[in-house]
Amino acid sequence: MSAFPASKYRPFPPIDLPDRQWPSRTQTTAPIWCSVDLRDGNQALAQPMSVVEKLEFFDMLVRIGFKQIEVGFPSASQIEFDFCRRLIDENRIPDDVSIQILCQCRADLIKRSCEAIAGAKNVIFHLYNSTSPAQRNYVFGADRPAIKKIATDAVALMKAETAPLVAAGHRIVLEYSPESFTSTEMDFALEICEAVTDVWQPTADNKVILNLPATVEYATPNIHADQIEWMCRHLTRRDLTIVSLHTHNDRGTGIAATELGLLAGADRVEGTLFGNGERTGNLDIVTVALNLQTQGVDPKLDFSDLNEIREIYERTTRMDVPPRSPYAGDLVFTAFSGSHQDAIKKSWDKQIAGEPWDVLYIPIDPADIGRDYKAIIRINSQSGKGGVAYILENEYGFTLPKAMHREFGPVVNRLADTKGTELSAADILEAFQAEYLDRKQPIEVVDFRTTEKDKVVTCEADLVINGTGRTLTGQGNGPINAFVTAVREAELLEFEFLNYTEHSLGIGARAQAVSYIQIQPINGKPLYGAGIDTSIDIASIKAVASAMNRALLD
Amino acid sequence: MSAFPASKYRPFPPIDLPDRQWPSRTQTTAPIWCSVDLRDGNQALAQPMSVVEKLEFFDMLVRIGFKQIEVGFPSASQIEFDFCRRLIDENRIPDDVSIQILCQCRADLIKRSCEAIAGAKNVIFHLYNSTSPAQRNYVFGADRPAIKKIATDAVALMKAETAPLVAAGHRIVLEYSPESFTSTEMDFALEICEAVTDVWQPTADNKVILNLPATVEYATPNIHADQIEWMCRHLTRRDLTIVSLHTHNDRGTGIAATELGLLAGADRVEGTLFGNGERTGNLDIVTVALNLQTQGVDPKLDFSDLNEIREIYERTTRMDVPPRSPYAGDLVFTAFSGSHQDAIKKSWDKQIAGEPWDVLYIPIDPADIGRDYKAIIRINSQSGKGGVAYILENEYGFTLPKAMHREFGPVVNRLADTKGTELSAADILEAFQAEYLDRKQPIEVVDFRTTEKDKVVTCEADLVINGTGRTLTGQGNGPINAFVTAVREAELLEFEFLNYTEHSLGIGARAQAVSYIQIQPINGKPLYGAGIDTSIDIASIKAVASAMNRALLD
Repeated sequence: MSAFPASKYRPFPPIDLPDRQWPSRTQTTAPIWCSVDLRDGNQALAQPMSVVEKLEFFDMLVRIGFKQIEVGFPSASQIEFDFCRRLIDENRIPDDVSIQILCQCRADLIKRSCEAIAGAKNVIFHLYNSTSPAQRNYVFGADRPAIKKIATDAVALMKAETAPLVAAGHRIVLEYSPESFTSTEMDFALEICEAVTDVWQPTADNKVILNLPATVEYATPNIHADQIEWMCRHLTRRDLTIVSLHTHNDRGTGIAATELGLLAGADRVEGTLFGNGERTGNLDIVTVALNLQTQGVDPKLDFSDLNEIREIYERTTRMDVPPRSPYAGDLVFTAFSGSHQDAIKKSWDKQIAGEPWDVLYIPIDPADIGRDYKAIIRINSQSGKGGVAYILENEYGFTLPKAMHREFGPVVNRLADTKGTELSAADILEAFQAEYLDRKQPIEVVDFRTTEKDKVVTCEADLVINGTGRTLTGQGNGPINAFVTAVREAELLEFEFLNYTEHSLGIGARAQAVSYIQIQPINGKPLYGAGIDTSIDIASIKAVASAMNRALLD
Repeated sequence: MSAFPASKYRPFPPIDLPDRQWPSRTQTTAPIWCSVDLRDGNQALAQPMSVVEKLEFFDMLVRIGFKQIEVGFPSASQIEFDFCRRLIDENRIPDDVSIQILCQCRADLIKRSCEAIAGAKNVIFHLYNSTSPAQRNYVFGADRPAIKKIATDAVALMKAETAPLVAAGHRIVLEYSPESFTSTEMDFALEICEAVTDVWQPTADNKVILNLPATVEYATPNIHADQIEWMCRHLTRRDLTIVSLHTHNDRGTGIAATELGLLAGADRVEGTLFGNGERTGNLDIVTVALNLQTQGVDPKLDFSDLNEIREIYERTTRMDVPPRSPYAGDLVFTAFSGSHQDAIKKSWDKQIAGEPWDVLYIPIDPADIGRDYKAIIRINSQSGKGGVAYILENEYGFTLPKAMHREFGPVVNRLADTKGTELSAADILEAFQAEYLDRKQPIEVVDFRTTEKDKVVTCEADLVINGTGRTLTGQGNGPINAFVTAVREAELLEFEFLNYTEHSLGIGARAQAVSYIQIQPINGKPLYGAGIDTSIDIASIKAVASAMNRALLD
């Protein structure tokens, strides 16, 4: 074990806010969402999206319901400039959608950005500069007043440069980000936000967006929430301000930071689909939105076809959604544990239409996001009888009696133990057939006929017993009873008939019947047999023979 | 947009704890860690680990520093039983490590578990049953007293069955989990934990572990913290109790739930490496431990060779660590953004040995977890000059003067824009060579000789100018000055010589020199040239020619 470098890292300083309110609040509405996929997400790709890919992605964001979409940093790159122009010149931006462009607080970039957005109806002009002590010291070599002046000068210039656009009826909203906000002293973050707001002069009809980024996540999410609540309480024009969150995920708590930041008073959330972004990624908007949905809050974003969204995302970004990603991952609706599988099946079966969703282990109905519940159960040596029964029922239509689950489950577990791998649905079907349906030793049913007279059924059963063809006859109050009487003559097994369940398999005239019969051998445990036939009677007869065969060979 | 099913989901009820203390607390020590990789992690694998793989994984967990390791559910599967026996029989468990075994509250399984652990020195016997209303209603069809009796009966039986082991000097610790704790009414969770503790009778030397799982994550992490603080404040034998967390990640906030749960008073954390586990996974212990490390808290786990740990994890579980996973992912120490790259380089250069870590955008020194900082900068059209300079310096040894960064950065950006993909280090070197070193039009330096007399240097330069060989002569106070005088005769360009930087390239006698020369053409912007040669003088002469050639062709 290496020595711990005790003095190498500093604890993050807490915020002095003993009367914080956010921990007692509950989120009851969706925030304003802003997608930064095409900027913060795209810039973190080894191979950035092509213009064609960006256009497809933009259209998808619109379909999902985003009303604010950051489309790039057009003054920094010709590709981003061209993409912005193309959106505008080809009238691809719906009237109720604002495009957002990022721009450093530099005069040349502000002017170039104005060229990029000319003609766009609704634009969020996103200016930023970095404000933390480390940024001021290491990167800019500038003190607080100088850093503040960078911001206010930029806002003044942007206001002047966009005045002709505003005069022409275009709507320009200012978003200002004190980049590295969470690492900035709170009083200076407030000072620079106030100064920017002074210059911009927001109105009730055109509020200023103050975006408070956790550019790098350095602290636990409760401290982030304290920072946001502190700002919300200190901004003098809170009513004219949209407070915006932009979390990253360096400590794996970016989603929590956003959720607690919303409780702390923020109005708006920036993020990307599936959390694409620099390093550990941006906020995953899919997860935050669907988290709201599971609490009965309409997220105002439509993820009802999450598979399609994921497909477009993976194709255009060349990133994969990891299998354990909330909601979207391949393994999310998969339960391996036997007790989980049992509980899922039992609670699913007891759901009442119109009542709130209450299936154990599954916080959202997969159908609500276009995902398939069929894949939920995969079978390995840890799996329970419920999962096996679920596969047989949902994949192949066999509804086994409950007591039969307990008998067949261990058969499958032993198979999985032997193979050492997960079993497919086909493996389970094959095991079921081998265990029940295909048994022909020592008794094989070849044909079965009955006649009835005075409520007494007489049967003739053509069997092969230990390789020798025999026709047995018997009488009873029904075909099964008659057959049981008949096979007793063969003196192969002494048993009592316990119960019988039968159901059709498939639909229509050519449907087969499957019968499950439980018998009690005189010197042994109760056990099941099963049989399939187009004839209801013969299916049952085969099931009796199957149970007898299992008793005789076990 | 599909209609939102407003009544389908219920909000999670908040906990009434207005005087909660956890939001003002700071974590200053590591919790007790318990790895559940070999149980909760393993059971969620499509292909569970083989016994050989489990043994390798167990040994790794011991090396990392885990003192509590859940090794399986030995009463549920022969494979898990055999693995547990093998650990014990082959003396693979260090004296200071406890193995933990999971067991349902069923008499047959408790007895079988005792066979599994016989001979183990330190055992945590982990009993659980599920306690939430949904589990009681759907799965067990049992009321609160019946569910409580399941737990207390099991603890009593376990106490009796393990008495011989305790008498023989083995240490048996009880861990009890009210499974689905976070979905259970707080008063009932408390009642069942108190009842279990009554039966077990913990002592100061053998405290009871009460594990309070978020079996499914249904709420924001602040509510989880409230639940944990509520329990910590209500347990009557808090001093004899180790409160343990076991979070899952269905809402993507499992790490936050654990961190806030620790602030709320918990002592112990169950989780897995990289968050392997059912559905969205268990808690990722790697991230929580390294989050502590970045706050100056010794995590008491050694992740100083995270690459090796990841390799063993990926090979044995057949799961991948996603590229954006905190600390371990491939993209975590990668900055694509130009401004990030600049800031990283500037702040890295200004780090002072012995002072706390303060590199921008990188919350942990990659070297502390055995990762390689060289991979940090990748170049695309969004990248800045700092990243390009970093690559040239760290990959190829070229330390460009700062003003030259601003000149060469855009050259690389245009190249990336044109190619539309990320550039490799070799691409950047090639661009540098093409832009500076390989220019031979209109002037090529073939040879250069000097003589010195009375502090006056006379040079002869063999050049090819516009395809014609010429030898120029000139005088100056040094070789460069003499050459500048000489080339003025060719009347190709009027310019002033601005500055000169030179350094060796490579080590030893055969090292080459690289020279960077900035000139100011009379009718144009200042620009750089560069030259390489084994002769210091000729490198500079080539650099002057390179600058002239660039001025003449641009």
